[in-house]
Amino acid sequence: MIDQNWFTEKYFHQDVATSFRVKEVLHTERSEYQKIEVLETHGVGRLLLLDGKTMVSEKDEFVYHEVMGHIPTMVHPNPKNVLIIGGGDGGIVREFVKHPNLERIDLVEIDERVIEVSKQYFPDCTSGLSDKRVNVRPQDGVEYIKSFKNFFDIIIIDSTDPEDFAAGLFTKEFYTFVSEALTENGIMMAQTENPFYDEWGIKKFYDNLREVYPVVASFTGPMLIYPGVFWTFAFASKGVKPTSIVESRMPFMEKLQANLKWYNMDWHKGAFNLSNIHKKVTGC
Amino acid sequence: MIDQNWFTEKYFHQDVATSFRVKEVLHTERSEYQKIEVLETHGVGRLLLLDGKTMVSEKDEFVYHEVMGHIPTMVHPNPKNVLIIGGGDGGIVREFVKHPNLERIDLVEIDERVIEVSKQYFPDCTSGLSDKRVNVRPQDGVEYIKSFKNFFDIIIIDSTDPEDFAAGLFTKEFYTFVSEALTENGIMMAQTENPFYDEWGIKKFYDNLREVYPVVASFTGPMLIYPGVFWTFAFASKGVKPTSIVESRMPFMEKLQANLKWYNMDWHKGAFNLSNIHKKVTGC
Repeated sequence: MIDQNWFTEKYFHQDVATSFRVKEVLHTERSEYQKIEVLETHGVGRLLLLDGKTMVSEKDEFVYHEVMGHIPTMVHPNPKNVLIIGGGDGGIVREFVKHPNLERIDLVEIDERVIEVSKQYFPDCTSGLSDKRVNVRPQDGVEYIKSFKNFFDIIIIDSTDPEDFAAGLFTKEFYTFVSEALTENGIMMAQTENPFYDEWGIKKFYDNLREVYPVVASFTGPMLIYPGVFWTFAFASKGVKPTSIVESRMPFMEKLQANLKWYNMDWHKGAFNLSNIHKKVTGC
Repeated sequence: MIDQNWFTEKYFHQDVATSFRVKEVLHTERSEYQKIEVLETHGVGRLLLLDGKTMVSEKDEFVYHEVMGHIPTMVHPNPKNVLIIGGGDGGIVREFVKHPNLERIDLVEIDERVIEVSKQYFPDCTSGLSDKRVNVRPQDGVEYIKSFKNFFDIIIIDSTDPEDFAAGLFTKEFYTFVSEALTENGIMMAQTENPFYDEWGIKKFYDNLREVYPVVASFTGPMLIYPGVFWTFAFASKGVKPTSIVESRMPFMEKLQANLKWYNMDWHKGAFNLSNIHKKVTGC
């Protein structure tokens, strides 16, 4: 809904809305999968919309991308191969390529146009895609993951909301495929919506995860452009604990985190201590 | 701005807005100090506005009130006398009265009408005001605090934004009065806005605090109805550390926190581990 120079997203049964004042519509197209728009806003810089929903803004993208890129990489004992499903904006790849111990980074985005539009309008986000360890695959994530067994150390599900073509990424069956594609110490992460405006049934996501993974945890980070801002993320693993930062990697991160905008190891250590509402809604 | 059954609050140079769908305007008046309105909304229940700005909603008020009420009470070695400046909705008092070790709870709200309107429309928030330890004083907080030296163990500044008649609550001079009114182990807390949309200059608040208090810390909690949701709060003291929960009080809180909606001691212990943007903007 773009109206009178404002972009408005309604949520929580259409009873709450957030709006951003628009300077210019930079791009609009309908790809094979969805409507892709890029707005230049006054308040949050460039804003990527998919089917009219906020996906990425210049102002806050670092939160999502840094937590997804650094939390698993700092706790996995020896991560080498990582996979991102969705995430065509490239932001998580940008964070993963900062870790020299990673050997292979697969980005599987169903909609190639999202990648191309991001390259044009969000060059900072896509800056990691040219790293020689990165393989960009424009294909369906569910199909892709089925062809791997015991291969990836970290898998990030960076998808749109659980509806339409992304719905398959939120089923227990899919989580089982992910689990099979993961190595023994494998870690999976995904975004899990806002517990105050629980439109999708967050508890069910976490219950599904708990049926597949022995370790399931949750944390929060603010996403200014997402409904209600207070965003939750899931960490699931076959045994690795979410706060067991690998000691030998601490000196490396001490240097790196000086140049990050959100992540640091102190924050990481406290991030899994949840408020009551967060515990209640996720069961963590 | 109430328009076509939506209440909209604009912020960050008027470039971002949050809107709540209105079912009914329950109350509207102009007191000696400000316009007071109560809306019945679809998304966040009843919503109190002062001069058109969101103050309290039924959906999220517990976050603000529980962190203000329980953090200082759990770390102060022996709190007896507490003072809230502002906070006419009574929510923080409701949390303080849950602590049997407190002997005196002063609520100094400049606008008596805020208290009366809250009693009528937010009876859950004001439910603590009838506790016999509570003294409600409808007067100016700055004047009130000047008459106390070395008396209060905890002082909470629960005010509107730093403008108009509330501006005096954000000066270094005022923080000095607060410090003088506090006992040796005294703790002061205040809300300190959103670091992403830093309209008021958050760093300056914290710099002022640091000139007066040896211990200055910050934490965050989501306030759905406030601009950008990601809200920060300041903890300042003459020596008490923000996470040094008093061991003898833990069994009491173990029981109490089972019935709280936000606060628990695990969350408290992790809450002061800040993200980089939060550190940078507050200097904590």
